[in-house]
Amino acid sequence: MRPATLRVGIAGLGTVGVGVVRLLAANAELIATRAGRPIAITAVAARDRTRERGVDLSGLRWHDDARGLAGDPDVDVVVELIGGAEGPARQLVEASLAAGRPVVTANKALIAIHGASLAAMAERSAVPLCFEAAVAGGIPVIKAVREGLAADRLTRVGGILNGTCNYILTAMRESGRDFASILAEAQALGYAEADPSTDIDGIDAAHKLAILAALAFGRPVDFASVHVEGIRAVGALDIAFAQELGYRIKLLGIARLAEAGVEARVHPCLVPQTMPIALVDGVFNAVFAEGDFVGRVMLEGRGAGAGPTASAVVADLIDVARGTTIPVWGANAEHLSQVVSVPIGERVGAYYLRLQVLDRPGVIAEIAAILRDSGVSLKSMLQHGATEDVSGNDVPDAVPIVLVTHQTREHAMRRALELIAALDVVIEPPAMIRIEAG
Amino acid sequence: MRPATLRVGIAGLGTVGVGVVRLLAANAELIATRAGRPIAITAVAARDRTRERGVDLSGLRWHDDARGLAGDPDVDVVVELIGGAEGPARQLVEASLAAGRPVVTANKALIAIHGASLAAMAERSAVPLCFEAAVAGGIPVIKAVREGLAADRLTRVGGILNGTCNYILTAMRESGRDFASILAEAQALGYAEADPSTDIDGIDAAHKLAILAALAFGRPVDFASVHVEGIRAVGALDIAFAQELGYRIKLLGIARLAEAGVEARVHPCLVPQTMPIALVDGVFNAVFAEGDFVGRVMLEGRGAGAGPTASAVVADLIDVARGTTIPVWGANAEHLSQVVSVPIGERVGAYYLRLQVLDRPGVIAEIAAILRDSGVSLKSMLQHGATEDVSGNDVPDAVPIVLVTHQTREHAMRRALELIAALDVVIEPPAMIRIEAG
Repeated sequence: MRPATLRVGIAGLGTVGVGVVRLLAANAELIATRAGRPIAITAVAARDRTRERGVDLSGLRWHDDARGLAGDPDVDVVVELIGGAEGPARQLVEASLAAGRPVVTANKALIAIHGASLAAMAERSAVPLCFEAAVAGGIPVIKAVREGLAADRLTRVGGILNGTCNYILTAMRESGRDFASILAEAQALGYAEADPSTDIDGIDAAHKLAILAALAFGRPVDFASVHVEGIRAVGALDIAFAQELGYRIKLLGIARLAEAGVEARVHPCLVPQTMPIALVDGVFNAVFAEGDFVGRVMLEGRGAGAGPTASAVVADLIDVARGTTIPVWGANAEHLSQVVSVPIGERVGAYYLRLQVLDRPGVIAEIAAILRDSGVSLKSMLQHGATEDVSGNDVPDAVPIVLVTHQTREHAMRRALELIAALDVVIEPPAMIRIEAG
Repeated sequence: MRPATLRVGIAGLGTVGVGVVRLLAANAELIATRAGRPIAITAVAARDRTRERGVDLSGLRWHDDARGLAGDPDVDVVVELIGGAEGPARQLVEASLAAGRPVVTANKALIAIHGASLAAMAERSAVPLCFEAAVAGGIPVIKAVREGLAADRLTRVGGILNGTCNYILTAMRESGRDFASILAEAQALGYAEADPSTDIDGIDAAHKLAILAALAFGRPVDFASVHVEGIRAVGALDIAFAQELGYRIKLLGIARLAEAGVEARVHPCLVPQTMPIALVDGVFNAVFAEGDFVGRVMLEGRGAGAGPTASAVVADLIDVARGTTIPVWGANAEHLSQVVSVPIGERVGAYYLRLQVLDRPGVIAEIAAILRDSGVSLKSMLQHGATEDVSGNDVPDAVPIVLVTHQTREHAMRRALELIAALDVVIEPPAMIRIEAG
């Protein structure tokens, strides 16, 4: 008896959707041997039937309304590639799970925001809900964290989760140019969207971090508790000072299981130049996880693009074809942990501060006194000659000062920063970047 | 109804065996939620009952003959941690599979050498045979290659597969000292065995590469076809010259699917200092894989030690407990590819040659003529002043010459090397190290 073909309905025929169509055609035979049966597309849903997409869609059933895939009798598994946490994407996934149909999605926003309720629906219907493509593209990080490291108590997970930000920060370092000019270049090259805010404000990375944290710590996904800062405020000066101090600036997502609960945050970090993650440049992503027995594991590769994302979508389809059944978040909902979230104010770590100050006697003493009174201990200070202000005008009387603190609690750091910002001699809002050395 | 406990019988209570006992105890609750049922050890097999191992073995059934685990009615899955490709390890695994009992093993030699026939036995009995711990310790590379990248046609797989060699090469570079003295130090520190040959002669890495290549290319595991060279011949001088040329020396395992077939080899390589794998130092392992859609993915972490290895063994046990069933080599035996192996002579790449020559006029012309006549094209040459010979005596008349070739076929390179070695002015056997830039 020939095994039954797994019949796939794809919603969304953008870059990734077309990539999945291409991959299933290009590697059909190999995929069938690995899945134990053929995997074939039988239906698609997309708005524009007439657009030329460069792939053969003849013979496929076409749905103008994506939700039609949930009830199509010739579809065994629905692939959702529409995107967005609400609207048609959410409606399709909910309808499919309710109808007892497995779902594969690349939609990080949907999973980060509605992953808990969707998992409950999948559990009720006893069908898989897979989202390997939602984090770090083709790098199999969901599988690694949920299954490969399943024996470990994970205490830390995160990484470089957004290729656009990593590209921009890398290009800023290599060129010495500022954020705005590199962003414009990245947009021209197609590495950044016309509306780049989801990427550069850290939201995309935060979606991914929320997903990783839920898997690593076995608790319901909780996007709202992730502290998010993007890279708009990182200056060319900061990148140069970081270099001088032996660091590189990376946008990291970090989730940590501490005694008080889970700390999850996305923000620019100074990382020592000798740390492997500091060396992951350009559009590449890297995900690390730390466990009590395995130690630290890191995975790197392309985190976006049609090919890598399609690779992850189809790997999920192969798991569905094989009948692999693992709870969505690694354990059934009743066994998920209820560990609380810890606000960013509780972070303990070192800080980099850059102040633009008037070059007057006693300025440093004044700043040092504020830090001391706030309980922040200073580790080192860098001062160079007069420079330009952010608008490029000469301010002969102003100099940048860089301060590096010892470990301190973020509450204290912020209190000190407010007082410092209020000083007359401090002529720009201070820049504060967290240092991550571990 | 409470789900049934998965009952484990462990053969071998060395470092890793004790690590597995510790891990199953330390994370019992977490493992039960992830596996969907408790996992508990019920029986052990080891030679010495009286040795103090620092873990509680009370209440477990003790087998003096490991094969007893295959027939123990209180054992659902056998964990083989005895080691060695033959003898008790092989007997136990064969008996267990024949008895229809799942097997988890960390035994790379056994899987590399007998993996094809063992997979056939597992397939006949329809039970899993798992060996995540056999390659790169706790880094989930088997899962990543077999499942995570299952949609891709992989064209290249390999990496830094032996932590002892990577430690020695790193220490040689950092200290400038020679192989023998660093090896002695590594032995004293416990990073190298008293009999280090399995590690430093590349055999351990070759076992792992054979396993990775079989998974990546979907063909029966074929250890015999792997070309193996170790690191004994790497000199302090080579490490210094490599540095000067912009390279680092790493022992890599590389398997490549070319038009003519599969090329699989383990040997020291010069890799550009800017490649991520060049920066993986000390006892760390790194595995890369390249696929037609995913591009290049790399995984890094600790490749050995009780904790990381136990982490992989227990992750496999969780898969067994969940009932995950994936063919041993990623596809059923009948669907494995019969692609042939290509001998090392067919390798095409660049080469580093170091010659110790008498400092006479015309020497370089003579060597260059041999290369030209063999069809080997020279890219660059380095020559420094007089130095010492390998025994440390001054040879005022001898100088090292380093040659770097353009891409050439290994056949041609070897022919040239024989002729060069036979020259009177060449006073030591030439050192030849392959350059891997891609």
